[in-house]
Amino acid sequence: MPLPTRTAATPPPQPSTTAAGSPQPDIRLAARLFDELRQRTGTGRGITRASYGLGEQIAHEIVRREARRLGMATTLDAGGNLYLRLQGRQPGPAIYVGSHLDSVPMGGNFDGAAGVLAGLAVAAGYRAAGVVPPRDLVVMAIRAEESTWFGASYVGSRAAFGLLSAAELTEVRRAGDRLSLGAAIDAAGGDSRRLGAGIAALDPARVACFIEPHIEQGPVLLARGLPVGIVTGIRGSFRHRAAHCLGSYAHSGATPRANRQDAVLATARLIARLDDLWQTLGAAGEDLTVTFGQLSTVPGEAAFSKVAGRTDFSLDIRSQSHATLDRMRRELQAAVADIGARHGVRFDLGPETGSEPALMDPAMIAELSALATAQGIRHEVMSCGAGHDAAVFAGVGVPTAMLFIRNANGSHNPDEAMDMADFSDAARILSAFCLQDRVAPAP
Amino acid sequence: MPLPTRTAATPPPQPSTTAAGSPQPDIRLAARLFDELRQRTGTGRGITRASYGLGEQIAHEIVRREARRLGMATTLDAGGNLYLRLQGRQPGPAIYVGSHLDSVPMGGNFDGAAGVLAGLAVAAGYRAAGVVPPRDLVVMAIRAEESTWFGASYVGSRAAFGLLSAAELTEVRRAGDRLSLGAAIDAAGGDSRRLGAGIAALDPARVACFIEPHIEQGPVLLARGLPVGIVTGIRGSFRHRAAHCLGSYAHSGATPRANRQDAVLATARLIARLDDLWQTLGAAGEDLTVTFGQLSTVPGEAAFSKVAGRTDFSLDIRSQSHATLDRMRRELQAAVADIGARHGVRFDLGPETGSEPALMDPAMIAELSALATAQGIRHEVMSCGAGHDAAVFAGVGVPTAMLFIRNANGSHNPDEAMDMADFSDAARILSAFCLQDRVAPAP
Repeated sequence: MPLPTRTAATPPPQPSTTAAGSPQPDIRLAARLFDELRQRTGTGRGITRASYGLGEQIAHEIVRREARRLGMATTLDAGGNLYLRLQGRQPGPAIYVGSHLDSVPMGGNFDGAAGVLAGLAVAAGYRAAGVVPPRDLVVMAIRAEESTWFGASYVGSRAAFGLLSAAELTEVRRAGDRLSLGAAIDAAGGDSRRLGAGIAALDPARVACFIEPHIEQGPVLLARGLPVGIVTGIRGSFRHRAAHCLGSYAHSGATPRANRQDAVLATARLIARLDDLWQTLGAAGEDLTVTFGQLSTVPGEAAFSKVAGRTDFSLDIRSQSHATLDRMRRELQAAVADIGARHGVRFDLGPETGSEPALMDPAMIAELSALATAQGIRHEVMSCGAGHDAAVFAGVGVPTAMLFIRNANGSHNPDEAMDMADFSDAARILSAFCLQDRVAPAP
Repeated sequence: MPLPTRTAATPPPQPSTTAAGSPQPDIRLAARLFDELRQRTGTGRGITRASYGLGEQIAHEIVRREARRLGMATTLDAGGNLYLRLQGRQPGPAIYVGSHLDSVPMGGNFDGAAGVLAGLAVAAGYRAAGVVPPRDLVVMAIRAEESTWFGASYVGSRAAFGLLSAAELTEVRRAGDRLSLGAAIDAAGGDSRRLGAGIAALDPARVACFIEPHIEQGPVLLARGLPVGIVTGIRGSFRHRAAHCLGSYAHSGATPRANRQDAVLATARLIARLDDLWQTLGAAGEDLTVTFGQLSTVPGEAAFSKVAGRTDFSLDIRSQSHATLDRMRRELQAAVADIGARHGVRFDLGPETGSEPALMDPAMIAELSALATAQGIRHEVMSCGAGHDAAVFAGVGVPTAMLFIRNANGSHNPDEAMDMADFSDAARILSAFCLQDRVAPAP
């Protein structure tokens, strides 16, 4: 599989081959770039960096410019992913660090960008200290992680490994402008024909390991008072984004209980039943989340004085365990059959999408934890509920880890709040890790 | 209280003072008027006769024209209600027969109109047979019964008895064009100033009794294979048309169970709890319906990958019993407090609206049932779940009854299906009733 071609870049100053000091990540650089990202991709409220769209393109320009200033070689692959390479002492597999630069509409400035800027801050720290790491350090700016745009997961990282299907490239379309994924990739400087042919830019054998720093999207670190988390595994999911319950409209006052085919009631019973199941399985120690995020009767059909004849809803079930996901799939089918029969309604769950669970590399978890402890950084080893590109790297066999950074107010909203001191703690762990050569397999 | 002033009308042919034959309601006249109503107020699908709007106005014109052809005196009151009077043998309180002529948007042709046309068919039958009834027969075309337009119940019949408040006239606005109720009444030929001053057109003491024929809006008669029902009572209601559940948006995969404030789940728990209660009370013989007809997360805020931070929903609870409604009010408050606390959400139920339950007159029920039996018309004495203008008449002390006509597919939709043979059965009972003089109090 061809590796990305290096593009012209400022030649790096000749590095010394030994550590010339104790390198510290350049947090001021990162802070400046966060500010520039916010200013240039900000909307009225929050920021918007559409996958393969304007905001994402601006973010890529910013990090490419900074990488060149640092003397890193920059490469674009057929999926539009950007590789910023700081040369190391040895040839062979590089350490990859990165995350995505797209965002949800009116999202926050940190989800995704923190991982790329942490990598740049580490590289800048090495340069300032005159440190050359043992292996190449590749900071990767991944495309199109937010599935809100194309309704597909991990587009950029899957593209890097040649895992996008030709059908996805033509059939999947971006929310809003309905541009096909292939056309959007080409417009952003990629090459959808290469992707459609399954040609990979990254060979897992050439990736020593992958680390994705990312803001925590749940409230766990905030609640525990810890700046950093080290992830054990990424939940996989199965989803029904366009499910329906079909009953019959009827007069609310004149229709006896036994004659009703009430779609709202049946949907409520389904929600309660799956929540009961979550409670039971959770108490038994199984990793699980169950979320009905969207639910609606039909405007213009439903009325306060009518039994509802239809609901539309979404369902998102996640677990680190394949077995738990399979069990929930069976439980869901049983529930809709039971409740459908009892309430005289029909559930149409629509297509199922989802992603595989992924376990992080135990040796890397141990190493990162030890390096945090050595620097006096309090942290916790924890599970990860959201999907991340790290799952794709783990899925192709690359030793993979994630560093979580404490964050208030969740993610996917304008109120994401990451403290730069916490970001600095994560970058320090990362910086120390990339100077180690223990966990990465020999080239 | 002033009675409506009679307007000029074709003078009736001089009636004989004794029955000149066995009068049969003029069903062909009614069928022709149903057809004309359908043609002239039909939309792409179903018919639309907005309260005090175009379709209702057309319907009023049609029945006024026909009443004049029959030699009935026609009167309009300050609420825009139309009275079509066939003179009887005796002076004194008249028998009132009628229903409303408005409809929900894209509704069916029979809900309301059947009651007015049944009255006209009876009057036409008397004229054709040369029969003069013992008392005046007043066919009343009532305005604005469908609360979908103004969000207020029984506007026309309350106006007739001077029961609209001045605040309603200025503050209540029609869905869609936002015209105030008072302005809409004036535009339709009424006089909102008289209404605002509480001046009544109808004096209960001058109304011997009121009978409202109406299609059944539930499936009971259809299921029992009966053409006609005689109503025992009309359910009252309390309603929350704009209720909300307020939680917090959060990442669906990254937010642990204990940290969620899930508005969809909390609303589902509320729906299930009230349904459980309905099951229990229903099994104990209490008359009740519980309907959550509208429910929605917020488009643009909710997403399949977010815990829902808000739902908007409606709740409609009905019973023939004051005590049951009061109990449900208390149970609802307890439920939202419990579920709110358990799920970390806040329920805001918004304003409560509703109507009082009303019992029909036992002597009239017995009389109508006897007259049906005497004519070989199979029927059932049954409760009524929907609100009707008859409740207002009963509420001011007028002896009141309702005749239900079998109807398929419910009401408030284009698929209402009333058979003219069933309509004829109801009209025959009505015709016989208005020739009796037993139940009406002496003038």
